[in-house]
Amino acid sequence: MIDNPLLLADTLERFAALPQAKILIHGGGKLATQLNAKLGIETQMHQGRRITTTDDLDVVTMVYAGLINKKVVSQLQALDCNAIGLSGCDANVIVSKKRDPNPVDFGFVGDVERVNAETIEALLTAQMTPVFCAITHDGEGQLLNTNADTISAEIARSLATAWDVELLYCFEKKGVLEDVTDENSVVEYIHTAKYHALKQEGKIHDGMLPKLDNCFYALEGGVSQVIIGDNNIINQRTICTKLTQ
Amino acid sequence: MIDNPLLLADTLERFAALPQAKILIHGGGKLATQLNAKLGIETQMHQGRRITTTDDLDVVTMVYAGLINKKVVSQLQALDCNAIGLSGCDANVIVSKKRDPNPVDFGFVGDVERVNAETIEALLTAQMTPVFCAITHDGEGQLLNTNADTISAEIARSLATAWDVELLYCFEKKGVLEDVTDENSVVEYIHTAKYHALKQEGKIHDGMLPKLDNCFYALEGGVSQVIIGDNNIINQRTICTKLTQ
Repeated sequence: MIDNPLLLADTLERFAALPQAKILIHGGGKLATQLNAKLGIETQMHQGRRITTTDDLDVVTMVYAGLINKKVVSQLQALDCNAIGLSGCDANVIVSKKRDPNPVDFGFVGDVERVNAETIEALLTAQMTPVFCAITHDGEGQLLNTNADTISAEIARSLATAWDVELLYCFEKKGVLEDVTDENSVVEYIHTAKYHALKQEGKIHDGMLPKLDNCFYALEGGVSQVIIGDNNIINQRTICTKLTQ
Repeated sequence: MIDNPLLLADTLERFAALPQAKILIHGGGKLATQLNAKLGIETQMHQGRRITTTDDLDVVTMVYAGLINKKVVSQLQALDCNAIGLSGCDANVIVSKKRDPNPVDFGFVGDVERVNAETIEALLTAQMTPVFCAITHDGEGQLLNTNADTISAEIARSLATAWDVELLYCFEKKGVLEDVTDENSVVEYIHTAKYHALKQEGKIHDGMLPKLDNCFYALEGGVSQVIIGDNNIINQRTICTKLTQ
């Protein structure tokens, strides 16, 4: 959605119209890959996951925390949504740990250790809308690239003790597809048993597997509902995938 | 200072050690020019001032709001300074107006219209240290490149009614030099009359003229003291230029 200005504008409009306290978390991998290409930096992948070299970390920090985050925030401000852009280092809001280089060295990739929910809650209470990019820090001066889906699940969990939290994963499809070649094969409900069955049948793979893992991780942490679908899910309940424990 | 990691680290250490409420505002023009060069984007200048094209705006947003801002914030966090990075669109904190394209079209350059002092004060009161980059917005979804010295003066003025504000401009020299070829010719005190005299004698030029204009603009707005010098001015009073009305 981030790569398509019209789709992004439509998504932000739907988001800004939500009356409740809300948080937006964005990725932006494709734009970072494009900038890498322009700069002659090779984007290294391992089994579909990005390896973050020193040069690559600078690029994702520029693209996620700079270009995308500030474009999103300024567009939300124009929609009367009092957005404030944050990466994990800002107000020490998300602390992560550099991933162990064994067995695979993913470089400057961080796994979330701690979300500072008090600060997020203070912003929400002050009627602000936090907009997170997928950059965190280790508290010792090192920025780290972190998966946006994981950040979403961690933030949702951190707020779920005090708030009623709903977690929406928006992407380009209508939901989890039973048959990836058929856009209309959306699985409308997934609970834990169904999830395990789908996995065993080999119907969930690639990027969808860690996404669903994040969904159930959020549900286990007290998040009331998780929904996966296109941007219609923000303010309507059209066809989509609803996940429950 | 931003371009030199050791000097930057030393500067941030001095800054983090300041016990009072504090704000850091940074530029980063040289790094943006370097990235432009790598991307084959021509950096256009008019009388020493950057013309911000659409491509250039993306680059300065990436470099200032992304790379530099987040590196500075994460390094301050490692020094136990609870920094929070902001550009003008974040929490609508600095609203600017695109500069009139006549007589010179500077492109996406914004002149500050309004600083939301209440939000800055709320962050300071919550023991946070705002770190501003030189990107603002027009409130209608457009990011704008804005001079960091001007932002500093505007923020200092906006806080000067309720706070005792001291404004420090750190750069690579010991202060305003009477003779630009002699590093030891620092003018230690400049008041309004002296400023006009120095201008008439042709001893102030290039980048220093707008910098001094900003200094006096801040003093006229109630800022108690303005100091120009190298990073020793942060926590010591060595040789430097002190400005008073």
